[in-house]
Amino acid sequence: MTAGLSVTARFGWLVGGARPVLYLIGLVLLATSGMMLIPMVVDLSLGSRDWQAFGWSVLGGTALGSALVYFYRGSLGEGLSLRQAFLLTPLSWFSAAALSAVPLYLSPFGATSGDVTNAFFEAMSGITTTGSTVISNLGEAPPGLLTWRALLQWMGGIGIIAIAIAVLPALGIGGMQLFRTESSDRSEKVLPKVRQIAAAIGSVYLGITLLAATTYWLQGMSLFDAFLHSLTTISTGGYSTSDSSFGNWEANGIQWSATLFMLAGGIPFVLYVRLLAGDARALFDSQVRRFVLFLGVIILIAGTVLLVTGSYGPEAAYRYAAFNIVSVVTTTGYATTDYSLWGNAAVALFFGLTFIGGCTGSTAGGIKIFRFEVMYVMLKSHFRQLLYPNGVVAKTYGGKPLEDNVIGSVVAFFAVFFAAYAALTIMLMALGLDFLTSASGAVTALANVGPGLGATIGPAGNFSSLPDMAKWLLSFGMLLGRLELFTVLILFYPRFWRS
Amino acid sequence: MTAGLSVTARFGWLVGGARPVLYLIGLVLLATSGMMLIPMVVDLSLGSRDWQAFGWSVLGGTALGSALVYFYRGSLGEGLSLRQAFLLTPLSWFSAAALSAVPLYLSPFGATSGDVTNAFFEAMSGITTTGSTVISNLGEAPPGLLTWRALLQWMGGIGIIAIAIAVLPALGIGGMQLFRTESSDRSEKVLPKVRQIAAAIGSVYLGITLLAATTYWLQGMSLFDAFLHSLTTISTGGYSTSDSSFGNWEANGIQWSATLFMLAGGIPFVLYVRLLAGDARALFDSQVRRFVLFLGVIILIAGTVLLVTGSYGPEAAYRYAAFNIVSVVTTTGYATTDYSLWGNAAVALFFGLTFIGGCTGSTAGGIKIFRFEVMYVMLKSHFRQLLYPNGVVAKTYGGKPLEDNVIGSVVAFFAVFFAAYAALTIMLMALGLDFLTSASGAVTALANVGPGLGATIGPAGNFSSLPDMAKWLLSFGMLLGRLELFTVLILFYPRFWRS
Repeated sequence: MTAGLSVTARFGWLVGGARPVLYLIGLVLLATSGMMLIPMVVDLSLGSRDWQAFGWSVLGGTALGSALVYFYRGSLGEGLSLRQAFLLTPLSWFSAAALSAVPLYLSPFGATSGDVTNAFFEAMSGITTTGSTVISNLGEAPPGLLTWRALLQWMGGIGIIAIAIAVLPALGIGGMQLFRTESSDRSEKVLPKVRQIAAAIGSVYLGITLLAATTYWLQGMSLFDAFLHSLTTISTGGYSTSDSSFGNWEANGIQWSATLFMLAGGIPFVLYVRLLAGDARALFDSQVRRFVLFLGVIILIAGTVLLVTGSYGPEAAYRYAAFNIVSVVTTTGYATTDYSLWGNAAVALFFGLTFIGGCTGSTAGGIKIFRFEVMYVMLKSHFRQLLYPNGVVAKTYGGKPLEDNVIGSVVAFFAVFFAAYAALTIMLMALGLDFLTSASGAVTALANVGPGLGATIGPAGNFSSLPDMAKWLLSFGMLLGRLELFTVLILFYPRFWRS
Repeated sequence: MTAGLSVTARFGWLVGGARPVLYLIGLVLLATSGMMLIPMVVDLSLGSRDWQAFGWSVLGGTALGSALVYFYRGSLGEGLSLRQAFLLTPLSWFSAAALSAVPLYLSPFGATSGDVTNAFFEAMSGITTTGSTVISNLGEAPPGLLTWRALLQWMGGIGIIAIAIAVLPALGIGGMQLFRTESSDRSEKVLPKVRQIAAAIGSVYLGITLLAATTYWLQGMSLFDAFLHSLTTISTGGYSTSDSSFGNWEANGIQWSATLFMLAGGIPFVLYVRLLAGDARALFDSQVRRFVLFLGVIILIAGTVLLVTGSYGPEAAYRYAAFNIVSVVTTTGYATTDYSLWGNAAVALFFGLTFIGGCTGSTAGGIKIFRFEVMYVMLKSHFRQLLYPNGVVAKTYGGKPLEDNVIGSVVAFFAVFFAAYAALTIMLMALGLDFLTSASGAVTALANVGPGLGATIGPAGNFSSLPDMAKWLLSFGMLLGRLELFTVLILFYPRFWRS
């Protein structure tokens, strides 16, 4: 702690400490490379020469990954320390994004071709399940590239569920201590249970994906489009195979199905497992109840306004309202129509909704419902305390006492979220972007939604025309938001690096 | 608490409880009427027929005030209960604003003439020291009306200092418990001391006002303009006698003096009293030090950018930067130039600065420096806790331990401020206003700054063209912000009204 300490004594833990982290990064790279075989095979089987972009990427990723795994084999030993877990989380997502960007860079197609910034932006937007894109003319894109974009979101989706269950509660991030259960306990004894839960969640994830794919296909999508959209629906990612997103598929109630499947992606996956195991109490989870109630009320109001103002007929009014509101609140980011054109009230609504997010433990981003619930409990007790300064006010959540350190974590999350939002907005404006583009771009990145608002990055627009620096800032914002802020920001806390 | 309780049992306390509140409201109306004699005399002595608007208002206000005082005489008795204090605070400001609007309504001049909405908006903007205006062609306004607008801000300024010292700490609003001293203790024994401090602060307030008036006059303003601007500078109000505000007075370093006097208005007035009493430690108050440091850094950067980009010569660059930044951060709201035209980075800067505010215990509004300090301490300890989950982290402010209930109050203040900001923005957009006008209008009202951003309500604009409902919403926002949110919002908490 004193200035006299030598650098090795201060940063010494890193030399040994980084080894298991690098070992695990190696595994992440190998897994990412393995996934790239899928788009390669798709390209090969459909006769697209774009397969070479994936071929080279698989080779490079496998070589680097194998080297790390071989070099640091056996270093995992007793598991990870707190600092190693903090280091691993953002580093593994960053590495996966960087490797995933390589085939987008190598492919001769589109805005990411030969453009490091665009390729990294698109990959980060994919793996964080954000869904902001720089690529246009998606209809002409090689099938492997479309497959890769969708797969990235699908991997990111299951990845964030895993982290929300196994890592964030243990690290005490943003009030996630509330969800500390046996499943997040890392002691030896319950490991089989952890594996069992992980397998169950994986099966549910895959099951809903296949269900969505089948539904879309039966409702008239091609098998290819149906499968790719199922990957980006369940992961609340929002990449599409068409520039006009789900606006391209109007018939047979397909948008209603997509609305339901997006909603399914915004609900904690543990609940599905509990339901399948016969635990009916899972249906009464307060977070889910309020999430659905909130969406229902907003959709009813917005749909009725659209109907009354004569913009659409009854079915279309509620369908457009439901689809686009669920899309933004679950942080998916598909669009069926340019809701910016519904007037300033709609712009305000969608801007506000961008902050909300889904339930924790789902693939959705944003601030998330349970944090609003905790804030509500805190504020209610504060008003009561103002009236009865000497009274003791009990705070509860889900019937259990709400501890002060959980409230403190949630409050810190809000504070940092809004500080990051303000900083990102100001930096984007300093790059010359207008107020609506900057403010909506900042929050759509942090909340992993996808589209912003306004003519440039709105639901009918595209991120390609932004300055390079803006794309790097937004990429950082996506990572920050996806990993719940603190896992990334703690690396900027000087004390983190001292032994 | 049960539904079976009769209405009288539930709301019974109000019948007796409202009496001392109404008695004090009567006194407020009498004081406001008394102040109206000043613009009446100004109009009379300068030969303006507008004196009649004030004459009728004085008559009406005195009649109503006297009736309340007479009818509820002797009801004050033992002082006020907590609920009565909560009830009194917003009610007295509302009553003062309503009575103050009458002469603006009766006067044949300008946008407030015969327009209830405009008159109330202008009066509320005055008494909350906000400074947003609906009146243009100020150069042609009758002298009494200009005097009244300036006096409103001056009264509001000393009023808010009194409340920040005597009421808010006792009520435990927004972390103001930190400033609980003997002077805010309402026990019998220290009453002489309270009176002494109140008198000392009043003298300092008057003294700085006269000093500012003399300075402005010596630097070339007319005596009338100098005095009126001194009233609206020290109160960080921002009403001017010219449509182009301080842009009308360029010569003799007058804008530099105004910058200093605005700064003086943003510093806790207790510190001046302590300094005059020979307590040199007052100079080292952490809030003031950080306030001045923050302003210095921002001004240096902004001034240098203005200089380097060749917009202005060296003196003008730093003068414009200093004046406009101090004006917004102290929540005064004077302008020397339309800084909206400095580019998107400047818009972002001024938008962000609108939230900050001055020191508590001053006439400035906004979130205020000490709350940012408390948030910083809270966040720093949170990062530390993430790294050392089992460690005990001490939180201190100004060398003293920072209690959890103070942090909780500050956090609640931030949460409610941003919730109110979001709600107000969305409501303004729903009325059809654009995003920049709505967002900057919402925060300029809540933070009592004055001008917003954009073509309509920016520093070169005016609030007159907004829809009536927007003006009522903004008026409510001003009152909410001025009274630190909770004193107003608690009236909407159902439990408040039960016995």
